[in-house]
Amino acid sequence: MNKIKCLDHGFVKLIDHMGDDQAVVQAARVSYGDGTKTATKDRGLIRYLMRHRHTSPFEMVSFKFHCKMPIFIARQWVRHRTASINEISGRYSILPEEQYVPEKNHLAYQSTDNKQGRSDENIPQDVLNKTIDSINDGFKAANRAYHSMLDDNIAREIARISLPLSQYTEWYWKMDLHNLLHFLQLRLHAHAQYEIRVFAEAIMELIKPIVPISYEAFDDYILNSHTFSGAEMSILRGFLKERLHELPTEHPSISKRELQSFKRILEDG
Amino acid sequence: MNKIKCLDHGFVKLIDHMGDDQAVVQAARVSYGDGTKTATKDRGLIRYLMRHRHTSPFEMVSFKFHCKMPIFIARQWVRHRTASINEISGRYSILPEEQYVPEKNHLAYQSTDNKQGRSDENIPQDVLNKTIDSINDGFKAANRAYHSMLDDNIAREIARISLPLSQYTEWYWKMDLHNLLHFLQLRLHAHAQYEIRVFAEAIMELIKPIVPISYEAFDDYILNSHTFSGAEMSILRGFLKERLHELPTEHPSISKRELQSFKRILEDG
Amino acid sequence: MNKIKCLDHGFVKLIDHMGDDQAVVQAARVSYGDGTKTATKDRGLIRYLMRHRHTSPFEMVSFKFHCKMPIFIARQWVRHRTASINEISGRYSILPEEQYVPEKNHLAYQSTDNKQGRSDENIPQDVLNKTIDSINDGFKAANRAYHSMLDDNIAREIARISLPLSQYTEWYWKMDLHNLLHFLQLRLHAHAQYEIRVFAEAIMELIKPIVPISYEAFDDYILNSHTFSGAEMSILRGFLKERLHELPTEHPSISKRELQSFKRILEDG
Amino acid sequence: MNKIKCLDHGFVKLIDHMGDDQAVVQAARVSYGDGTKTATKDRGLIRYLMRHRHTSPFEMVSFKFHCKMPIFIARQWVRHRTASINEISGRYSILPEEQYVPEKNHLAYQSTDNKQGRSDENIPQDVLNKTIDSINDGFKAANRAYHSMLDDNIAREIARISLPLSQYTEWYWKMDLHNLLHFLQLRLHAHAQYEIRVFAEAIMELIKPIVPISYEAFDDYILNSHTFSGAEMSILRGFLKERLHELPTEHPSISKRELQSFKRILEDG
Repeated sequence: MNKIKCLDHGFVKLIDHMGDDQAVVQAARVSYGDGTKTATKDRGLIRYLMRHRHTSPFEMVSFKFHCKMPIFIARQWVRHRTASINEISGRYSILPEEQYVPEKNHLAYQSTDNKQGRSDENIPQDVLNKTIDSINDGFKAANRAYHSMLDDNIAREIARISLPLSQYTEWYWKMDLHNLLHFLQLRLHAHAQYEIRVFAEAIMELIKPIVPISYEAFDDYILNSHTFSGAEMSILRGFLKERLHELPTEHPSISKRELQSFKRILEDG
Repeated sequence: MNKIKCLDHGFVKLIDHMGDDQAVVQAARVSYGDGTKTATKDRGLIRYLMRHRHTSPFEMVSFKFHCKMPIFIARQWVRHRTASINEISGRYSILPEEQYVPEKNHLAYQSTDNKQGRSDENIPQDVLNKTIDSINDGFKAANRAYHSMLDDNIAREIARISLPLSQYTEWYWKMDLHNLLHFLQLRLHAHAQYEIRVFAEAIMELIKPIVPISYEAFDDYILNSHTFSGAEMSILRGFLKERLHELPTEHPSISKRELQSFKRILEDG
Repeated sequence: MNKIKCLDHGFVKLIDHMGDDQAVVQAARVSYGDGTKTATKDRGLIRYLMRHRHTSPFEMVSFKFHCKMPIFIARQWVRHRTASINEISGRYSILPEEQYVPEKNHLAYQSTDNKQGRSDENIPQDVLNKTIDSINDGFKAANRAYHSMLDDNIAREIARISLPLSQYTEWYWKMDLHNLLHFLQLRLHAHAQYEIRVFAEAIMELIKPIVPISYEAFDDYILNSHTFSGAEMSILRGFLKERLHELPTEHPSISKRELQSFKRILEDG
Repeated sequence: MNKIKCLDHGFVKLIDHMGDDQAVVQAARVSYGDGTKTATKDRGLIRYLMRHRHTSPFEMVSFKFHCKMPIFIARQWVRHRTASINEISGRYSILPEEQYVPEKNHLAYQSTDNKQGRSDENIPQDVLNKTIDSINDGFKAANRAYHSMLDDNIAREIARISLPLSQYTEWYWKMDLHNLLHFLQLRLHAHAQYEIRVFAEAIMELIKPIVPISYEAFDDYILNSHTFSGAEMSILRGFLKERLHELPTEHPSISKRELQSFKRILEDG
C-alpha cells in the first residue's frame, strides 16, 4: 500500500525512491575510506551519523511522491526549498470542484496563549454548524464565480483567482532523505497546523518501511530529543553535580558509551 | 523613489541592497588575480561576464524588497527557490479585505493557440461587466465567511481557508543579482501572466539605477538575445555560407572582436 | 557496463538512478492536468520542455555516481552546488599514492589568446620529458613528506597538507537530471579544462542510455544551440529581411511548426 | 578594524554587509502583521526566533568577506553550499609561493580515540623539527616543479597540479546570517580541524559587532546548548520527577516564562 488518503480529498502516494538505509551506509563509508567495514555495524553507523548530525549521507536517498492537498497547505509545504516540484497549473487546466471542508471535530477557537494556533476549548454545536455553513456558502459563491467565467470563456488564469485557499491542488514532489526528515521534524511538530501534520504523518508512514533504521534513529535523536540552552544546562549541571552517581548505570536503549558521554556532558559540558 | 505601486493594492519597495556594478567587477577580478586591473575596463568586463554566462560575480550583489501581491502571484513567485522570504502569516494575523480585481482592459478570453494564456480578442462590454460582477460576488461571499468565523473566534488558520487566491499577501524578499536577473528573464517574458509581469517590471525599474551596466548587459545578451537550436543553426549556416562577406563589417553597438566571433560562429560553429 | 575509466587512476561509475524519460513526461503532465495524454506524444513533449527551458520536470530524475578524480578537478566539480556529495576524508584515511600524471600528448603550452587555456602548438620532446620529470619529482617529494609524517604518527589531517593537487580523491555524487545537464553543458565545453571534460564525457555516456530522448533534446537545443545577442540578432534580421523566402521550407530534423517560428523570429523577433 | 590575520599567510576581511539585528526584527515582524510592534521588545523577539529555530528572518542579513586560506581548508569551507564564491583561478593566474606551514605547537600526533583528530600528547623536539623539515622539503620540490613548468611556458592549468594542498588561495565569499551561524556552529566546534577554526573565529569576531543581539542568542541557544536524545531525556525525567521542586525558581539569565517551560519539559515532555 503506497497511497494514503489525507483529509477529505487529498492523498500522498509514493511514486518512486532511490536507495535505502544501505545507501546511507555506503555513502558514509566512502568518507572513512578503509576505516570501518563490518557489515554488522551498519545500524550503529547510521545512529552515529544521526546523533552527530552528519547529514550528508542521508542526502543520498531520494523519494518522489504524488500529493494532493489544499492550496493553503501547499503554500506552507513549498517553503521547503530543497524539493523538486511539478504542480498542476490553473492557467492550463480547469480545476475540479474540490475544496477542503474541515470535519467538525477539527474546528477550533483561536488559541489565546499560542497566537498562531487552535484552542482546546469545546465549540457549541450551533457554532460548529454555522461555521461549516459559512465555509460552504463561501465555496459555493467561489465556484459559481469560477464557472461563470469559464462558461464565458474568460482565460483560466483569470477565472481561478476567485477560487479559495482551500482549493485542492496536486503535485509531484521529490526530496532527499535528509531534507525530508527536516520537513517531518517541522511538520510533525505539535505547533504545525493540523492539516499539514496529516500529510507529514502520511509521508512518515510511507518512508518508514524503506529506511527503518534511519527513521528509528531520527525518532530517537531528533523527534524525541530536547535541546537545552546554555542557561538551562548550567541549572541542570548545578543541580546534578553532586547527584551524578545516583543516575542509572545502564539503560535498555542506550549504549554504555553513550551513557558515559551523557554523564560527562552533565558534569562539565 | 524606491516604491512602485502594482495592480490595485500591491507594491514593490526596495528596502536595501548590498553592492552594485563595482561589486561584480571586484569579485570577478579576484578570479583573474593580477590579470586585469585597468579601471576603465569595468564595463567591458561586466559585458564579457554576462555574454559568456560567468554568473558567479553577479551573485555578489543582493537586493531586499518589501512586496505586496495577490496570492496567486505569490505562488508563482515563490517557485524561485534561491530567495529568502518572510511572509505575513494568516495563522497569526487578520488579513485585510484586499483582493485583486482586474481592470476591465486586462480581462481576456482564453487563448486558443497558447493553452496557458490570454487571447487578444475583444470582450463585449456586457461580458466584462458580468465578469467583474462575478469576481466581486465571489469576494463578498468569501469575506463574509472569513469575518463570520473571526467574529465567532474561530482560529484564524481555519478561517482564512475561505479567502480567495486574489487575496493580497506581503513579504520581505531577498535575492542576489544573478538569480534576480533570471527571475526577470522568466517573469518579464511575454508568456508570463500579466499580473506577475507588472511586479517584474517594478523590480526592474528599481534595480536598474543601482546596476546600470549589468542591467544593460542583461538586456543585450539575455533579454533581447535569441537561441537557435542545432538544426536552426545548420539552416542559417547553410544559407549564409556564401554570403558572409555581405554582412556588415561594423555595427554601432558591437565591438570588432564580437563581430569577428559572430561571423566565425556563422561559418563553422 | 556502468563504469568508465578516466585519466590514469580515475573512473566514473553509475551506482543508481531514479526515473528515466518517462519520469520527465509523468511530472510534466501533472502541470497540464487533463490537457495532454497521448502516449505517442512523449518525445514531442520532452523536446518542447527542453526547447522552452521548462526545466523542473527534468529535476524528477536522479543519478548517483561513484567517482575518482584528481583534487584539482574535484575543486572545479564541487562548485556545482545542487549536488549531494560524500567524499573520502584525508583526516580519517591514509590516501593511496595515486597522483595524476598527464600523458605527453595532453601537455601543452599556455595559450596566448585564451588566458586560461592550452595552446595547440607542439612541444619539443625534451621539454615534454623535462615536464614529466618535474611533475614526478614533485610527487616523489610530496609522498616522501606525507609518509615520513605518517611514519612518525603525525595526525593525518596535518600530514596530507603536503600532498599535491593532483592527488586522487573519490566521492559519491548525486545530481538531478536538470542540474546534471547544466553540469555537462559547462564541462563538455571546449573551454573547460581537458581533465574535467574526460569525466563529463564519461558521465554523458552513462546517462545517455537511461534518458535517450532527453539527452537528444539537450544535444539539439542546448549543446549545439547558439545564442545571439540583441545586436547580433538585429544584424541577422536586417540581412535576412528581404531573403526570408529563400530559406528552406522544410528540414529533416525540424518540424513545420518550429520552422515557422524560426522564420517569425528572423522577421521581427 | 575589519581584517583579521589567520595562520601564516591567511586573513579574513569583512568587505560589506547588508542589514543588522534590526533587519532580523523587521523581517520577522512582517510575519506577525500588526501583532507585535514595541521597539523595546526587539531583543526578546530575536531570542525567541533563535530559541525556536525560526531561521528565515536571519537570512535577511548578508555578509561578504575576502578570505585567504590554504586549499585544504578551502575544500572544507566550500562544502557550505549556500554561499556565493569567487575564487582566484590557477588556470589564469600564477599563484604566489605561499604555503601553510603549521607552527610547532600546532603539530600533533594522530588521536587514538577520535579517528579524525589530533592527540594532546607532547611531541619531542626532534620529531617536531623533522616534521617541519619534511613539510618544507615537500614544498620546495613542489615549487621547483611548478616554476620549472612555468619557465617552460607550460599551461598554468597543468603546472599548478604540482602545488600542495597547503597552497594559499583566496576568494570572495558571501553568506546570509542564518547559514553563516550554521557554518560557525560546525566550524567553531572542538572537532573541527584547528586551521578552519582559526578562520571561523575570525569571522565570528567580525560579525559580532554588527549583529550583537543575534550573536548572543546564537551563543546561548545554539553554541552552548546541548541536545539530549529521547533515551537520555527519559533518564533525566525519571531522575528529576520527584525533585523538580528542588530546582531553582529563578536564574539571572533566564526569564520566568522560560524557566516554567524548562520545568514542564522535565516533567512530561
